[in-house]
Amino acid sequence: MTIKQLVENSDTRAGRAFDITIQALIVVSLISFAVETLPNLASTTRHALDIIELATIGVFTAEYLLRIVVADHRFRFIFSFYGFIDLLAILPFYVASGIDLRSIRVFRLLRLFRTLKLLRYGRSVERLRTAFSTAREDLILFFVASMLVLYVSAVGIYYFERTAQPEAFASIFHSLWWAVATLTTVGYGDVYPVTVGGRVFTFIVLMIGLGIVAVPTALIASALSEARRNERRDDG
Amino acid sequence: MTIKQLVENSDTRAGRAFDITIQALIVVSLISFAVETLPNLASTTRHALDIIELATIGVFTAEYLLRIVVADHRFRFIFSFYGFIDLLAILPFYVASGIDLRSIRVFRLLRLFRTLKLLRYGRSVERLRTAFSTAREDLILFFVASMLVLYVSAVGIYYFERTAQPEAFASIFHSLWWAVATLTTVGYGDVYPVTVGGRVFTFIVLMIGLGIVAVPTALIASALSEARRNERRDDG
Amino acid sequence: MTIKQLVENSDTRAGRAFDITIQALIVVSLISFAVETLPNLASTTRHALDIIELATIGVFTAEYLLRIVVADHRFRFIFSFYGFIDLLAILPFYVASGIDLRSIRVFRLLRLFRTLKLLRYGRSVERLRTAFSTAREDLILFFVASMLVLYVSAVGIYYFERTAQPEAFASIFHSLWWAVATLTTVGYGDVYPVTVGGRVFTFIVLMIGLGIVAVPTALIASALSEARRNERRDDG
Amino acid sequence: MTIKQLVENSDTRAGRAFDITIQALIVVSLISFAVETLPNLASTTRHALDIIELATIGVFTAEYLLRIVVADHRFRFIFSFYGFIDLLAILPFYVASGIDLRSIRVFRLLRLFRTLKLLRYGRSVERLRTAFSTAREDLILFFVASMLVLYVSAVGIYYFERTAQPEAFASIFHSLWWAVATLTTVGYGDVYPVTVGGRVFTFIVLMIGLGIVAVPTALIASALSEARRNERRDDG
Repeated sequence: MTIKQLVENSDTRAGRAFDITIQALIVVSLISFAVETLPNLASTTRHALDIIELATIGVFTAEYLLRIVVADHRFRFIFSFYGFIDLLAILPFYVASGIDLRSIRVFRLLRLFRTLKLLRYGRSVERLRTAFSTAREDLILFFVASMLVLYVSAVGIYYFERTAQPEAFASIFHSLWWAVATLTTVGYGDVYPVTVGGRVFTFIVLMIGLGIVAVPTALIASALSEARRNERRDDG
Repeated sequence: MTIKQLVENSDTRAGRAFDITIQALIVVSLISFAVETLPNLASTTRHALDIIELATIGVFTAEYLLRIVVADHRFRFIFSFYGFIDLLAILPFYVASGIDLRSIRVFRLLRLFRTLKLLRYGRSVERLRTAFSTAREDLILFFVASMLVLYVSAVGIYYFERTAQPEAFASIFHSLWWAVATLTTVGYGDVYPVTVGGRVFTFIVLMIGLGIVAVPTALIASALSEARRNERRDDG
Repeated sequence: MTIKQLVENSDTRAGRAFDITIQALIVVSLISFAVETLPNLASTTRHALDIIELATIGVFTAEYLLRIVVADHRFRFIFSFYGFIDLLAILPFYVASGIDLRSIRVFRLLRLFRTLKLLRYGRSVERLRTAFSTAREDLILFFVASMLVLYVSAVGIYYFERTAQPEAFASIFHSLWWAVATLTTVGYGDVYPVTVGGRVFTFIVLMIGLGIVAVPTALIASALSEARRNERRDDG
Repeated sequence: MTIKQLVENSDTRAGRAFDITIQALIVVSLISFAVETLPNLASTTRHALDIIELATIGVFTAEYLLRIVVADHRFRFIFSFYGFIDLLAILPFYVASGIDLRSIRVFRLLRLFRTLKLLRYGRSVERLRTAFSTAREDLILFFVASMLVLYVSAVGIYYFERTAQPEAFASIFHSLWWAVATLTTVGYGDVYPVTVGGRVFTFIVLMIGLGIVAVPTALIASALSEARRNERRDDG
């Protein structure tokens, strides 16, 4: 059992334990990042959060260096997608320590790249990639069509509502906010049409638009089950 | 026609009648549980509810004991999933009667396990289990991805809105509530972005996020129809 | 070209014209029913609406009698599904004319059965029926599961929120209204959790519940495309 | 390399560059149209927008004339779908320049037809057309059924809520606005039932209605993946 197997091979028991430990630490690190933003934190809590931060960064750094050391082609790993992610997950800490405290906050946001480390594991990521490339053309078409529907909806509602609600629908960009909230069916209720024309327009937009904005989700799902079927056919 | 057949075999007419009776009593019991919480109940109503409670518990207890008696392997039934459910459905009543009245309320919540008794019946539960195990990997991937999307959305909106709305977006946890309401498209309207940056961010988050959070539903449905197709192929 | 062919056979040109005329009249009748409810109607408009009502009822009555006359088995038509619908569409008018004016309004609601006449036509109704019977078991399972999810959600939120919002969550029935608005993702925003416990519970409920409440739609769609595939296989 | 190839053939490198340039100009033109509506624009910005407008119209006019010149059948192109779209995208500018300034705004809306020019490109438009024609009958059925569900919901809620909320539910048309916002699950929160009867009715409407209004989306998606499967079968 070499260190190389431990780090790179998640099929062995030790390798899986290593993976799960790293994943757990990422989750701990993300939660502590959220806790840090809570107002009125006791100084003891702050202290505990600092220690968690130091510990997770330590482990992530060790992991990164280990992966470089055991890699067959070191440079290839460093410049690979996961190599960059691993670096981005620890770099902000070291950079922030060396510079003015003011800008730390912004760098801390880069720690969010750690979340992508969670996706390193899991065999179905490959299937998802297949599904995306299968449905790619349709996804792009519907994405473009969704953008057009949003734009046309915003222009339309702007012409109907700007006289009745000059603040909420002050420009097409303001109306776009309404279009986004409406066509995704979020419907916060901060802006909505009040004129008869605006409501009839909303009705038409929803009837046509929902069948466009919501299609991509169903496309991904059906491409995924297709990819699964093909996999099994290849296996059996 | 033995009692064993009555209790365990829902293919016979008597067995089906037994099943339907139990199911009806579970529904009655759940409704009476809800009625009990209505404010300003007349004492006669309260009395009626107590009698219903006693009657249903009586029948459920008799059913539980019957199932133990007629089981081929009694211990195996008692420690089976449905054995536990049947016990949990009646236990709170007996435990609550013996202890301090204050904590009864909490124990009453355990009666909700009775709802699971409704799922004992129905042949398509088996198919659902197949569907879940087929799509398991993808469901886990999308669940993890959904959690990440929610987390990243919360962090992002926190940075955009905390200055403009320091109460609603007081911390990442507060922002998480916004992320949940937005990405599930519930959109209560109690919290929503007001800054231009926050709105553009919401737009991007919705475009990407909806295609992640809503996929699992479609996955379950397509796995279910696949399971149905396979069933029929095996039959025919 | 007999009257029988005109009324019963929508494959001929005259038959199709007859169908479309009836359908158009149903739509006219439904719109005039809606216009009637507008406040502050001019008496000339009211008069016009009365004439439209008389005319449509006249045609529908003639159509109903014609269908009885040309039917091969008159009694079978009268007691068929569509026979009842056709009768229910005109009966309220005649009954209402003979009785006290007060109760007319209620009888008028029965005119809504006319909408079902629109579904008489269209070949894909047959396919929809096939799709429903294919997915029937799964639809029932998910309907029952949806009801349970709604119930459990209502009970849960009631325990979390009733102290903080004693009016909105006064009983499990009040909480059920929240559960319906939330799990269908309508989210009016009239009731929503404010406690931390209630919000975390909402989060969990949405993660699990959406994957249950939204599945039936996808089931119907996939059963429909399956039915279409089978049709074409039988044809080709 | 002739001009004809440049304009009509997007398979060559130059042809693709031409296509992308036109598409980019359409996007620029749409954005500038939106910017124009922003309140309190500086006069320099207005000036820049006018120049962008002139430039894009110039290019679109040149493109339109080029397409006519290089077309094999000039009249056929002019009266084709894309011919009309290309004309409609530039016509408003020239018409508006010649007439009273007041009505310009309305003509400007016609510029939205330019968005359709974006759909000229992209191979999957063909597949979408196949998908639509495959699912056409079902889409029409569900569209009609959706209209009926909306109508019946509006009538129902009108009878339940008009006494309690005489303003929001003043007529069936007012109630229709509620029905649209509810059954598309947008749920702005500007109108919602407050009576027990209205809420129970909403519950029933949602349980049945969502399974009707949301089906078309899933139908399009499944028809699209079917079209993709067939394509590949034909290829391989």
